[in-house]
Amino acid sequence: MNARHDDAWTLSRRDALLGTGLAAAAATAAAFVGSRGASAATHDFHGVHQGGIATPVQQHLAFATFDVTTASRGDLVALMSTWTTAAATLTAGRAINGSRSPNYPPADTGEVAGMAPSSLTLTFGVGPSLFDDRFALRPRRPAALADLPAFPGDRLDPIRSGGDLCVQACADDSLVAFHAVRNLARVGEDVVALRNIQFAAGRASSGSVASETPRNLLGFKDGTSNVRADSPGDMDEHVWVGSESDQSWMVGGTYLVARRIRTHLEQWSSLSLETQQDTIGRFRESGAPLTGRRERDAMDLSQLNSLGLPVIPSSAHVRVASASANNGAKILRRGFNFADGIDPRTGEIDAGLMFICFQKDPRRQFVTLQDNLSTNDALSRYVTHTASGLFACPPGVSKGEAIGAQLFD
Amino acid sequence: MNARHDDAWTLSRRDALLGTGLAAAAATAAAFVGSRGASAATHDFHGVHQGGIATPVQQHLAFATFDVTTASRGDLVALMSTWTTAAATLTAGRAINGSRSPNYPPADTGEVAGMAPSSLTLTFGVGPSLFDDRFALRPRRPAALADLPAFPGDRLDPIRSGGDLCVQACADDSLVAFHAVRNLARVGEDVVALRNIQFAAGRASSGSVASETPRNLLGFKDGTSNVRADSPGDMDEHVWVGSESDQSWMVGGTYLVARRIRTHLEQWSSLSLETQQDTIGRFRESGAPLTGRRERDAMDLSQLNSLGLPVIPSSAHVRVASASANNGAKILRRGFNFADGIDPRTGEIDAGLMFICFQKDPRRQFVTLQDNLSTNDALSRYVTHTASGLFACPPGVSKGEAIGAQLFD
Repeated sequence: MNARHDDAWTLSRRDALLGTGLAAAAATAAAFVGSRGASAATHDFHGVHQGGIATPVQQHLAFATFDVTTASRGDLVALMSTWTTAAATLTAGRAINGSRSPNYPPADTGEVAGMAPSSLTLTFGVGPSLFDDRFALRPRRPAALADLPAFPGDRLDPIRSGGDLCVQACADDSLVAFHAVRNLARVGEDVVALRNIQFAAGRASSGSVASETPRNLLGFKDGTSNVRADSPGDMDEHVWVGSESDQSWMVGGTYLVARRIRTHLEQWSSLSLETQQDTIGRFRESGAPLTGRRERDAMDLSQLNSLGLPVIPSSAHVRVASASANNGAKILRRGFNFADGIDPRTGEIDAGLMFICFQKDPRRQFVTLQDNLSTNDALSRYVTHTASGLFACPPGVSKGEAIGAQLFD
Repeated sequence: MNARHDDAWTLSRRDALLGTGLAAAAATAAAFVGSRGASAATHDFHGVHQGGIATPVQQHLAFATFDVTTASRGDLVALMSTWTTAAATLTAGRAINGSRSPNYPPADTGEVAGMAPSSLTLTFGVGPSLFDDRFALRPRRPAALADLPAFPGDRLDPIRSGGDLCVQACADDSLVAFHAVRNLARVGEDVVALRNIQFAAGRASSGSVASETPRNLLGFKDGTSNVRADSPGDMDEHVWVGSESDQSWMVGGTYLVARRIRTHLEQWSSLSLETQQDTIGRFRESGAPLTGRRERDAMDLSQLNSLGLPVIPSSAHVRVASASANNGAKILRRGFNFADGIDPRTGEIDAGLMFICFQKDPRRQFVTLQDNLSTNDALSRYVTHTASGLFACPPGVSKGEAIGAQLFD
């Protein structure tokens, strides 16, 4: 706890334990209560872990990154408190509320008034750049938050990449996700500036079992062999940071890697079905591995065809991405399709996969996988990574605590 | 009917009357039948008028424009036939199908395999540029398809504006709308090139009565005083081209105007509630006119306040846009919110309203309204029109006919 700041941020876990936090939090929350309509699906903002990670994947994504524009650590600490309160309000389907006088700007921008919460989750993360000298956070940087290396084929747009902070807004209505990011940017406008927003929709992969695995823009089912978000064992093994962490503020948290992966759709669509299937290692229609008949059939990576060649080719995406080819590395994927209009340089549709994944150590997980994929995956010929982000997502909070409080303790 | 072309385009109304067209159409359609899942809401592609006009507004829009890349009128005629067949297939929720050999590229790109039709409609239009000398169509250009004038404040991006052809894809799932445009572009790749795609979501205005009028990014209910798409009288009076047309091929059709209207969100959000309400002329929360209490209360444009000033200010959007201020001009609106990330020049969110409207004569309707709005509407300070399009949408077709066939007769 940083004792210099006598503001809402001081609603820490310690205060809650002392019995003072909850009452103060309730008072703060009351100031934000608005007049939104009845709720449909609602995710409580509070919990051991942040929402939007194990939460079943929603239909829409607004992924925002921010740069801190103040040099004041106190302002940053206050922002995290303000954002936490606002996030709890927004996920409950309520409007941000301040003055109700018509002589002042409305506190909430109002475009989702009357709409249901629409399964909104808000997930906050802090990027490597936050641990420079501005806020005296250098000693708090986790070793696992090591800058991602450059991968072969990367064509990263610096503005769409990086960021001091990120907010992942997911909801079943695109306007609800947009509204949440817009209003978080607004309440934080004296402390942060929006760096980028990536909108994406139509979930492309799912962390939980759905009756039908969604397809990506390649036309293939995506995410069949994923960490199971509904398996606590899987999550503890691969996603949630445990006591092994060198930074106690990250225990119960996770690391988010975001990659904007453009798909060269015209090139891909002109491949024969056989080439597409050999590139992925699965049948397009059923999603089954080339050695199986049904989607969930286990891959047989050793099976050979009559010519003595592997049925799942050595460069097939599923083989190169498999845990067995990557020292057991698995990640929790949360993918959405994006389509951003026409690329004026090529006349092609600028579309693809907004790939977000969660893991307990990116060095051992995403980096291992991407090192292998960028060199050996046949699919890499048809995709280009155009933006990249890495963020440490602190654990969840109880009422009265602020996201990331322990980082500033 | 142009007798030079012995291709699928020859499935004309006349052939259908002769009893030959339907069988041929069925054969063509069969070649496109795919394996998509059971349908939820489905709009039949065939009818007196094209879909996506009187159809209740769906949740998502993909608005594509195309340039014709061939000099051959026959190729263009064939494209319209191919597109008509493909559109009927897609709106029925089926996949475009050709060869099923794994040695060829799949005919359908596959990303919505297994998904429901999701209320997909596809609406085709032809732009003024199609009536130049390339295809000998100059005598067929309707007087109502006059180029839109430049309006004060316009900042039009030429690439996002214009186009020889347009396709408006609307659906309740964004991937379904995307897939439709992508596959139409693909089946037409030898004849047309994609010029632009604008994606937008979260309907912002509705042509039919909904329990809750949707809000735009300004936070206000939008479309309360719209032409009623469910009123045949309204539609005949304001939208469908009748026998008054100088071009018989447009009878039963309508004219589409598309405007990408960027909203200066930060500027708008910093206005007091009172200024916002005076700018629009309605209360934000209820949507009621400033002279009323409920959303559907009639505006009283003559009511004065205690200072003797009009309660609905002289520059209020609802007054300047009202039919009474525009010689009775009304339009059918079909608006969607767009959000395209961050404008790198300003750091602001590049978002606003993708405004589409339909009318029987843009000169008398949209142009009259926009002439007035661009000069006198208080709201014009907070929005900028960044793209513009004008298209003639031919009438609907029966099975076996091609959209726009009579244009080439």
